Amino acid sequence: MSLERLLRSEGGAWLTASGPAADVVVSSRIRLARNLRRHPFPPRLTPAEARRVVEEVRAALGTLRLGPSGPLELVELQALEPLERQVLVERHLVSPQHAASELPAAVAVDETESVSLMVNEEEHLRLQALAPGLQLHAAWEEADRLDDGLAERLDFAYDERLGYLTTCPTNTGTGMRASAMMHLPALVHSNQAGELVSTLARVGVVVRGIYGEGSKAHGNLFQVSNQITLGRSESEIVESLEAVVRQLVERERGARELLYREHRTELQDRVGRAYGILTHAYAISSEEALALLSTLRLGVDLQLVPQVRPEVCNELMMAVGAASVQYREGRLLEPAERDVRRAAMIRERLASRQAPRGEA
Amino acid sequence: MSLERLLRSEGGAWLTASGPAADVVVSSRIRLARNLRRHPFPPRLTPAEARRVVEEVRAALGTLRLGPSGPLELVELQALEPLERQVLVERHLVSPQHAASELPAAVAVDETESVSLMVNEEEHLRLQALAPGLQLHAAWEEADRLDDGLAERLDFAYDERLGYLTTCPTNTGTGMRASAMMHLPALVHSNQAGELVSTLARVGVVVRGIYGEGSKAHGNLFQVSNQITLGRSESEIVESLEAVVRQLVERERGARELLYREHRTELQDRVGRAYGILTHAYAISSEEALALLSTLRLGVDLQLVPQVRPEVCNELMMAVGAASVQYREGRLLEPAERDVRRAAMIRERLASRQAPRGEA
Repeated sequence: MSLERLLRSEGGAWLTASGPAADVVVSSRIRLARNLRRHPFPPRLTPAEARRVVEEVRAALGTLRLGPSGPLELVELQALEPLERQVLVERHLVSPQHAASELPAAVAVDETESVSLMVNEEEHLRLQALAPGLQLHAAWEEADRLDDGLAERLDFAYDERLGYLTTCPTNTGTGMRASAMMHLPALVHSNQAGELVSTLARVGVVVRGIYGEGSKAHGNLFQVSNQITLGRSESEIVESLEAVVRQLVERERGARELLYREHRTELQDRVGRAYGILTHAYAISSEEALALLSTLRLGVDLQLVPQVRPEVCNELMMAVGAASVQYREGRLLEPAERDVRRAAMIRERLASRQAPRGEA
Repeated sequence: MSLERLLRSEGGAWLTASGPAADVVVSSRIRLARNLRRHPFPPRLTPAEARRVVEEVRAALGTLRLGPSGPLELVELQALEPLERQVLVERHLVSPQHAASELPAAVAVDETESVSLMVNEEEHLRLQALAPGLQLHAAWEEADRLDDGLAERLDFAYDERLGYLTTCPTNTGTGMRASAMMHLPALVHSNQAGELVSTLARVGVVVRGIYGEGSKAHGNLFQVSNQITLGRSESEIVESLEAVVRQLVERERGARELLYREHRTELQDRVGRAYGILTHAYAISSEEALALLSTLRLGVDLQLVPQVRPEVCNELMMAVGAASVQYREGRLLEPAERDVRRAAMIRERLASRQAPRGEA
């Protein structure tokens, strides 16, 4: 997809709130780390070498056809304004580290934002496939198809014994990172989230905020992923993570049921107030917006707010970041003005009849 | 008016948000303290004497005709449930002290709740006239008409030198207490209210919360009244209080203009959130409801909320008390359930097309 269309889109197909367990799992993601054999790995890249990596990938993508979602068009990060890069971070298409790259680096995305590729992030290549709901296998198939296509055109660094060679040792082996973006408001509300995170860490599952390492879980959104990539097959990784995610889904649903059964009024009140504030505030921070959208989404899932569609919550949760708000306005804004524009955007989106995208 | 109709009514004519300076002055009130010559004053009343006072007043009212607002019908407090008495307190028809009376005591109210009478409160009689907005003279005329009618039928304790004799020395003289219920959100918001209260105290003006002595100013509503009743004529009292109220009106309007001019976004945001919460909460305390209704009323006065009529705010502010909520439900409620019923009542009233009373 072209940069223009990418930045202007309202979000990828993975935000549609469809797919299995979409009440708890926003999206499933597979990332594959790959490096090119004949170039130094990213930490040792010179600008000239980095440029060569970008050009090799561009050439490979030029002849690659993935199917109905269209070609992957390469966009160089150096050609972007800082604000535009930040928008890509908020859309989960590049990592914060990648956006900050000083060497030639790039991103490529298909029409639906389901398949994408970072060039010269921590590794030469990070392939990414996203699917709505709990669909790790489907995402893996997508990523695998892209991997196969690229492997025919590029010479990946691979060792018979170690598997794919990578900069970061935690990526070595399959190079696969499987993850699910999960919405866990009831577990957080009932103070079970912290204990679950430490229990999961002991079995090699990492739980983070949605903007990667060290980020806070704003909006009760968590990225749950495997830690171990070496000594296990891709399907083992996908299946073990899927098992963990399924358990979390059941725990979250149980906590929601309990809230609904035993604290219905408090729940209705919190959800109603969240909706009332979101539809009537004139200034709102991204942090408050995410917290209220999380409560609203919970209410939508529990059918307490029939007038709001779940994908609208998903889209808004990805659209309230500072960069997205500013990009939409076409200019940099002071924080106070951002809060005003963010509130207006949320009011408009929730007040509209919420026709599906394109019909609004 | 009969007890049944009184308790069921949505509030007196003084809540119509009409009259001069109705954006700041909710209502004007005149109270006159009177005692009967041939009975001990209230602190020394026996139950039998108290009963005789009630009967004398009942007889006087029986032959009194005040005009279009109909007769004053006497209701004995001892015949009421504690909840019903509390409703009368919340409707500003009796004082908390009066509601708690253990001796025979009574209240009488006309059809529009503009004129009323407490029997055996702190004094044998306290006549009360209420008018919407800043209309102290009009209220005084109403009170004076009732006073004249009663004076023809009852023998008031009066001393040529001291004037009307009363239990409480602060009532002696004219026996007149003039007051205005003022809504001062902008002065409170800009931290000017505290200083004004102490300045006014030095010139004999008392500022209190709306439920009388010692009550807090919930909802930014203040009762502003004269302290001195002795040595000044009725018209001097009315005129000097009117001058003070006019000054406060100007101060409040100035503070509102400043808010509107310099902090428009913050103001719109506060008003919007108040409206959003009031129309969507499922549980709300009376304190929070009053605070939000105060903000909403400010927004209505500044024409930021065209869909809400000011008298609806006034009515709701008088209707959110614990007793009023329970009386409307016809039974005693646990505090949590009260909060739920209060929220439902507010939602319904604000969500309706807000047709004038009787058309809804």
